[in-house]
Amino acid sequence: EGRKEYTPDPNNPFANDPLRHPAIIPSSKRPFNGEPPSDLLIEKFSTPQQLFYVRNHLPVPDIDPNNYSLEVTFEDDDEGTVEFSLKDLKKFRKSSVTATLQCAGNRRSEMNEYKTVKGLSWKQSAIGNATFTGVKLRDVLMFVGFKESDPSYKGKHVQFEGLDIDPFTSEQYGASIPLVKALDPEGDVLLAWEMNGEPLTRDHGFPVRVVVPGFVGARNVKWLGRITISDEESQSHWQQNDYKGFSPEVTLETADYSKQAPIQEYPVQSAVCVPVNGSTISSKDEEITVKGYAWSGGGRGIFRVDVSLDGGKTWFEALLKQEKRTFNRNWAWTIWHVTLPIPKNHNGELDIVCKAVDSAYNVQPNTFHGHWNFRGVLANAWSHSQVKIE
Amino acid sequence: EGRKEYTPDPNNPFANDPLRHPAIIPSSKRPFNGEPPSDLLIEKFSTPQQLFYVRNHLPVPDIDPNNYSLEVTFEDDDEGTVEFSLKDLKKFRKSSVTATLQCAGNRRSEMNEYKTVKGLSWKQSAIGNATFTGVKLRDVLMFVGFKESDPSYKGKHVQFEGLDIDPFTSEQYGASIPLVKALDPEGDVLLAWEMNGEPLTRDHGFPVRVVVPGFVGARNVKWLGRITISDEESQSHWQQNDYKGFSPEVTLETADYSKQAPIQEYPVQSAVCVPVNGSTISSKDEEITVKGYAWSGGGRGIFRVDVSLDGGKTWFEALLKQEKRTFNRNWAWTIWHVTLPIPKNHNGELDIVCKAVDSAYNVQPNTFHGHWNFRGVLANAWSHSQVKIE
Ligand SMILES: [Mo]
Ligand SMILES: [Mo]
Repeated sequence: EGRKEYTPDPNNPFANDPLRHPAIIPSSKRPFNGEPPSDLLIEKFSTPQQLFYVRNHLPVPDIDPNNYSLEVTFEDDDEGTVEFSLKDLKKFRKSSVTATLQCAGNRRSEMNEYKTVKGLSWKQSAIGNATFTGVKLRDVLMFVGFKESDPSYKGKHVQFEGLDIDPFTSEQYGASIPLVKALDPEGDVLLAWEMNGEPLTRDHGFPVRVVVPGFVGARNVKWLGRITISDEESQSHWQQNDYKGFSPEVTLETADYSKQAPIQEYPVQSAVCVPVNGSTISSKDEEITVKGYAWSGGGRGIFRVDVSLDGGKTWFEALLKQEKRTFNRNWAWTIWHVTLPIPKNHNGELDIVCKAVDSAYNVQPNTFHGHWNFRGVLANAWSHSQVKIE
Repeated sequence: EGRKEYTPDPNNPFANDPLRHPAIIPSSKRPFNGEPPSDLLIEKFSTPQQLFYVRNHLPVPDIDPNNYSLEVTFEDDDEGTVEFSLKDLKKFRKSSVTATLQCAGNRRSEMNEYKTVKGLSWKQSAIGNATFTGVKLRDVLMFVGFKESDPSYKGKHVQFEGLDIDPFTSEQYGASIPLVKALDPEGDVLLAWEMNGEPLTRDHGFPVRVVVPGFVGARNVKWLGRITISDEESQSHWQQNDYKGFSPEVTLETADYSKQAPIQEYPVQSAVCVPVNGSTISSKDEEITVKGYAWSGGGRGIFRVDVSLDGGKTWFEALLKQEKRTFNRNWAWTIWHVTLPIPKNHNGELDIVCKAVDSAYNVQPNTFHGHWNFRGVLANAWSHSQVKIE
């Protein structure tokens, strides 16, 4: 099914993984996960594919595009399965969307400093923004005979299965989204084969991945092999027993995943990227330029970013670079900056803080206190960058 | 135009206002504004109309339903104005929606305790939940010839004008929402004439009001007299120079309303309603039952409510009473409760706290620090109820 015939080395099923850009800082090597340095991250509004954070759960599949096939199935229908080659998919009306993807574990290392969590130690660059091109999932579902007039679609889910396979258990990566999101003409869910005008690289899902704007990264399934319309969410490990939020009292031992809802849309987020946390600036400088990103899920654009140089006592409004605002369809991030006079009474250091306000006026919590969770997801407390002045 | 001929008393333009339920606690009398006690508020999932908070900006109009007329105008169209009598509106397909309305100033008194703000001193009951019945605004717009295929609708706005008039300036109350919200088949915007199965009372907009589920109360225009489809937002005072959020540094003197976006969808909110803040419980009690509400704008349902008896050191999950969850269409609030053992080391008082998590995992900020704004809107920090144990 489009997978090259190669025998994985049982001692290293990751031996066939692609090379990565040398700037990417790994948070794990097998499977490979990595992110760019935070100052490089925000140099461009569109994150270059080679610098885009990589989040792999399994070895990277090596797919021959000429043999690639996508299966689409309606679980409660006798009409069987429709298969699409890459060529078939490219016959549809082409659509593009500029969207930010963010890993649920972004900024986990900061939550871990507050209190230990379990998961990959992401800094603040497990996020990126790109223009994806492909076909709207809505168009494909309409083509295979989906009927919008059937009100039963409202409780259903679209399950996605990746062609990445666990070499030991044979489990494939999987996730799902509500069918109403896929069918919304303004939901902009894509089956994408291009990122910033280039074919997807292997690390980003070559030849075809799902892009679910406004949702957490984990639902944007790479190396897409199968789509199933079902009454149930994906039964995969990653939909059922991972990527959920818990109260601060729940531990690894007491967690009951069946009682929590999956992370889908993501809350408002922002981070200081420049100056980098822990860096030193000159005592001769009179001004400092602070830069970062802000984003919120569900197409909620960013209304305001507040920046402080004194740990949150006084605030300044950052200048925002963003796409034109539209109601609940702002899938791309906001890049922001502000140049401020360095306060005289600095005592040799600055506690730089940022926090964002989204279009529903949702805000980031002040600290991780009360928002900590043992998996270290949803780390969106105010972002701090501590710099020394010497 | 459907307004009874009466001459307002120049010394009291509010002389013709209706009577209110004796339980309603006024926050201002002219215009009348008031809310129920917080323990009464959450006794029922549907708030009785007589106990529903009243938010009036002007004297209450006294409209003869037989002369009532609603004008609908497309600003950039020569086809003029379509008028609907109440009888005309009732010929459309009837729709109902259960939705929570919340004043932007709800919980302002708490933000005012942190630092003084300007506005009506609402406690935590400027919120209510009811089933509204009427016609979908979408159906009316389709009837008057709106064309969904015209992509120009995407930047447009629906302006609403109330029949309430400032007796001195002749200004009418007004507000607007994005046209995409009104046209969304799942947006559920209604022109409503019933609340919980009864005709609207005068205080709640008799004979017809707008209900914009998931939006702040201020856009749910009462005594609806005119709808205008326009390239611009409403130019009314309340859309342009009120109901906006500001950074903590902005004051009454420095505020530039033209640079901030209006509050439309509302952020996640919750409050402890029982026991009432400042009340006393018996030292013989072994358990305490805590009750309250939670809600979020944009149809985002409530995933979790955390309750603490010790100011936020330890947390318990509340039991939630809510409608079945659907993706981004949960317009009704969640009522919650939890019964907990009273901690032995209580020192004669409990600092009860609640905070909610919505379906995008947005959370309430820990405190008003950094979120304070001079108008005292968007007060959604963790809610505290301090009780004495004697
Ligand atoms: Mo992730
Ligand atoms: Mo309000």
